[in-house]
Amino acid sequence: MAAPTPPTRNAGGRRREREIYRAAVEIFHRKGFSDASVEDIADAVGILKGSLYHYINSKEDLLFGILREVHTEVDELLRAARERTELSPLSRLLDYVHRQVSYNAENVEKIAVYYHDLNQLSRDRLDEITELRHAHERYVRELIAEAQEQGEIEAVLDQRLVAAQVFASMGWLYTWYRRGGSLSAQSIADFTVEFLRRGLVPAAR
Amino acid sequence: MAAPTPPTRNAGGRRREREIYRAAVEIFHRKGFSDASVEDIADAVGILKGSLYHYINSKEDLLFGILREVHTEVDELLRAARERTELSPLSRLLDYVHRQVSYNAENVEKIAVYYHDLNQLSRDRLDEITELRHAHERYVRELIAEAQEQGEIEAVLDQRLVAAQVFASMGWLYTWYRRGGSLSAQSIADFTVEFLRRGLVPAAR
Repeated sequence: MAAPTPPTRNAGGRRREREIYRAAVEIFHRKGFSDASVEDIADAVGILKGSLYHYINSKEDLLFGILREVHTEVDELLRAARERTELSPLSRLLDYVHRQVSYNAENVEKIAVYYHDLNQLSRDRLDEITELRHAHERYVRELIAEAQEQGEIEAVLDQRLVAAQVFASMGWLYTWYRRGGSLSAQSIADFTVEFLRRGLVPAAR
Repeated sequence: MAAPTPPTRNAGGRRREREIYRAAVEIFHRKGFSDASVEDIADAVGILKGSLYHYINSKEDLLFGILREVHTEVDELLRAARERTELSPLSRLLDYVHRQVSYNAENVEKIAVYYHDLNQLSRDRLDEITELRHAHERYVRELIAEAQEQGEIEAVLDQRLVAAQVFASMGWLYTWYRRGGSLSAQSIADFTVEFLRRGLVPAAR
């Protein structure tokens, strides 16, 4: 993961930088951004606070780097789903949902930091992340609209409410999912897709 | 709303106390519990910080009072749904969901504080709230189990995953709902119930 203004680093520097970001995710997740200190993170990595400032200028740089990384990775999920042009819009939407739920489970601490501490960013940076988020939401709403046009999702359903349920099904996971439990990321993703398919598709009843 | 250890108050004192709690919800919602101060709340009510300490001993007392009030009010929703004994388990579950979604919309700031700042409580108080929360979750899971026994929800569905989707559909609301928008609490609650009914009920396909 790149720091917000990355200087040139050698392989050792990049490895150290990744360790710092990993530690930041863990500490922000455990204590919350407000109550976490740069010192906590330096301690977790086993370096002095002063050395950490070779990599960042502020605690907020770490948060911003984490949130940008989430969007880089989620954009990759969206791109992969978008490329499945052989699928119908609904199937492409559900293909994306499956990838996103799996990602949210595999990165549950990072996602928890994303939702919990987003509003801790300074105005400019919050605007930047919000713009990425809106682009993401637009993409999902467009897939819903396409699926409605093709009759895969009932046209009568309010698109904003459909989108809210899709985001709820994916996003709520971080509030309860714990690694190493008896539910695998795969089984949760499968269930979510099936549940949404039933909820959204007009059944012959 | 009662403070954690309420002394006897006259009507004026109780009114003032309610103002303080209302202000605390607003300030915690806007700044987050960690970054909010007792002074912010005193300022919002228009009293001196010292006067506020007639009502509470600490900022955490306010958070605890808010979270307990949420549970008192949600218990009331659960009780109302439980009394609808003329309904089947699934219909009782969906009756509760409708009440809870409406409540979450009408109390969106309080619910946001609940989910965002719950973990800021000290250990004993967090345990107390967690116990209330578990009782609530048990009740919902029992309704799901009953609905499965009666064939209203497919028995093959994993009860924990069903419960997770029900809680997602209700809980995610606070992340996007804004007062005064074009979607009413009623229309969101209606949609959520219909969406869950489709998602959970075995269709004749």
